[in-house]
Amino acid sequence: MSAAVVEFLVTGDEVMRGLIADTNTQITATRLYPLGLALRRTTVVGDRGEDIRRALLEISVRADYCIVSGGLGPTADDLTAACAAQAAGVPLRTYEPWLEHLRRRWAKIRPNETMPANNLRQAEVPGSAEVLGNPDGSAPAFALRIDRCQFFFLPGVPREYHRIVEEMVLPRLVAATGNAILRSRILHCYGVTESKLDELVSAVREAHPEVRFGFRTKFPENHLSLSALAADAATAEASLSRVERKCREALGPFVYGADGVTFAQALGEELARRGETICCAESCTGGLLTQLLTEVGGSSRWTAGAFVTYSNDLKHSALGVPREMLQQHGAVSEAVVRAMAEGARERSGATWSAAITGIAGPDGGTADKPVGTVWLGLCGPPGTTARLAKYRGDRGQVRLQAAYGALQLLREALGPTRVP
Amino acid sequence: MSAAVVEFLVTGDEVMRGLIADTNTQITATRLYPLGLALRRTTVVGDRGEDIRRALLEISVRADYCIVSGGLGPTADDLTAACAAQAAGVPLRTYEPWLEHLRRRWAKIRPNETMPANNLRQAEVPGSAEVLGNPDGSAPAFALRIDRCQFFFLPGVPREYHRIVEEMVLPRLVAATGNAILRSRILHCYGVTESKLDELVSAVREAHPEVRFGFRTKFPENHLSLSALAADAATAEASLSRVERKCREALGPFVYGADGVTFAQALGEELARRGETICCAESCTGGLLTQLLTEVGGSSRWTAGAFVTYSNDLKHSALGVPREMLQQHGAVSEAVVRAMAEGARERSGATWSAAITGIAGPDGGTADKPVGTVWLGLCGPPGTTARLAKYRGDRGQVRLQAAYGALQLLREALGPTRVP
Repeated sequence: MSAAVVEFLVTGDEVMRGLIADTNTQITATRLYPLGLALRRTTVVGDRGEDIRRALLEISVRADYCIVSGGLGPTADDLTAACAAQAAGVPLRTYEPWLEHLRRRWAKIRPNETMPANNLRQAEVPGSAEVLGNPDGSAPAFALRIDRCQFFFLPGVPREYHRIVEEMVLPRLVAATGNAILRSRILHCYGVTESKLDELVSAVREAHPEVRFGFRTKFPENHLSLSALAADAATAEASLSRVERKCREALGPFVYGADGVTFAQALGEELARRGETICCAESCTGGLLTQLLTEVGGSSRWTAGAFVTYSNDLKHSALGVPREMLQQHGAVSEAVVRAMAEGARERSGATWSAAITGIAGPDGGTADKPVGTVWLGLCGPPGTTARLAKYRGDRGQVRLQAAYGALQLLREALGPTRVP
Repeated sequence: MSAAVVEFLVTGDEVMRGLIADTNTQITATRLYPLGLALRRTTVVGDRGEDIRRALLEISVRADYCIVSGGLGPTADDLTAACAAQAAGVPLRTYEPWLEHLRRRWAKIRPNETMPANNLRQAEVPGSAEVLGNPDGSAPAFALRIDRCQFFFLPGVPREYHRIVEEMVLPRLVAATGNAILRSRILHCYGVTESKLDELVSAVREAHPEVRFGFRTKFPENHLSLSALAADAATAEASLSRVERKCREALGPFVYGADGVTFAQALGEELARRGETICCAESCTGGLLTQLLTEVGGSSRWTAGAFVTYSNDLKHSALGVPREMLQQHGAVSEAVVRAMAEGARERSGATWSAAITGIAGPDGGTADKPVGTVWLGLCGPPGTTARLAKYRGDRGQVRLQAAYGALQLLREALGPTRVP
């Protein structure tokens, strides 16, 4: 049996005109690809009835499955349900259970207002459709067969769309592969290129065809996704955990976490477990490292704060870096990064302090210290360490790599996790 | 004459599988829409010859113009040039001037190596194509007519793609509108909703049909794009500057800058003009404000640095906020934000200091001070001011709005730019 053909259809003037990005299909594609389905085409059209109907009917003879997003709302430019009915050659009908659901929902949120008549439109679905519902919104998803293709119509709001994909569409597509259950894990790696990552796990992949491997770069990280399909949950979970263990062995210290945790968060949680804290001393990264540590909720458990000492004056007054040292060695030097780290630790009382000073560009480079030259420092209970790094890329890339480099110094100090 | 129909075709397995996002068409759509062209469809297919040929031939009878991206590189999965030739029914030919260009380019970059034979493939174009070239890369863009449609084939690398669109494709599409010249300006606004922005400029828009208006939200900013089409440059520029002036009058202090400048950058450049500097004192924003100030190259001219005082201990030790004040008023209070601002200014010697302390969520809110409660402070030559803000949204949105709010306090202090 050849793989089932899957397409996406995205509707909406705002997407067509570039006002909003279609992130729905991108994320969904990374979920569907490991199933072995043949993702063949994505089509984007605006809010024009003839364009939507034409696209539906073209897809209806090309694909086995199609996920359609957008155009299910209550306003006049929400045409998708009507176009779906017209393309299928069936009338619209009002789905009474959903109407009742909408009325109860409205009464709960706004008990003193009458529901606008517009909202009733959202209970209208093609006569032959199977209503799937929507746990988070007022427009119900529905499934509809047109010719050889099974369509899934979903609201375009990303939060609603993704939950419906996960809970209602994926299980149906998994079934189409001849399996019943899908279990996935994403291993987040730092310090390894995508091609090296691929090479390190290739033996595991070849030995375990029952688990599908996928790769994705999220600079400067690389992620490995593992997907196990099976007839039952126990088999899928056993395959997944066996292969995950072997991949973690093959990848060693490159793996820092799994399933959405950020690099800074993984380190922060480890600090919190130990009852320790960190304070940063940043120059060229200008607050980026601290921002990575604090963007996660609950980060006050591990972050004391930071001294962003962009100017030499502030390096001296806020961190106690001697003026003569700055003059003699320059701000981008081992002596200064050590003094920054030691000053930040002493003045904050944090367990650890990470320091960064470098040349992020585009200006400021010299023959001796070109753009991308960064000194990283760490001060903590075992003492102070420093490392010289030379990064490539533009200002944003140099800054991001420097912030990761400082976190990696901390990671090595916390355990045997040195990355080559 | 009805508007010319334009489509996009994106090729590449990496886009189809969601490994990389197609940002090219989104940005291009916002450039094309003001031309009054009818953007009717975007199609994304993987690296399969039959899928690419089929898409080209379908588009060839539907559209007047189509921009195709991807698949022009030197590797085996770069199929687009061959598929274009097959769809047009013409052979591939080697375009000698480009081959010569590639050889010279290689000799310059790697004088001691022979150019791989693979690279020669990039000089092969469909026999009937007009070669447009590529100022930044090795794969040349080309134009090709198939049936009723004029296709433009572009490399998918964003930097190369966008330059070719701007310099080679846009002028040809402008000509298709019956005009010769397009001049655009984007006004960046802060403090105004998209619907209010629309309302404020509606009279100008109605009085000036010769300029097209477009809107785009980039949270928490809103941008207004103005596009003037005319037969000659002088007319286009005159229309544009007349309408820009009227829009700036209608929008008053909401406009902070134009054409890509960031909010923090606009304020930073104003500080640099005055020979002044800023230091930040951040609590709940955790370095985000400083990060916005320093992500721009050259920001050392206006940023002294920052004290990110996440913990109360650090608010006391690094900024001198009295412990009794923290205990009596709490960290999120007017007294503390004023003390933070004053401490940061005094200890940094900067002209200005901006302070932020609040509850970003998801935890930490109380009945008195719910999530989104933020105190903003500013200390400078005229003294210290403070403002209480209540933001909606998730942790990331609260933090971003708080950073903008602090910058807005500075903006008001620098000039008569109070936003209602």
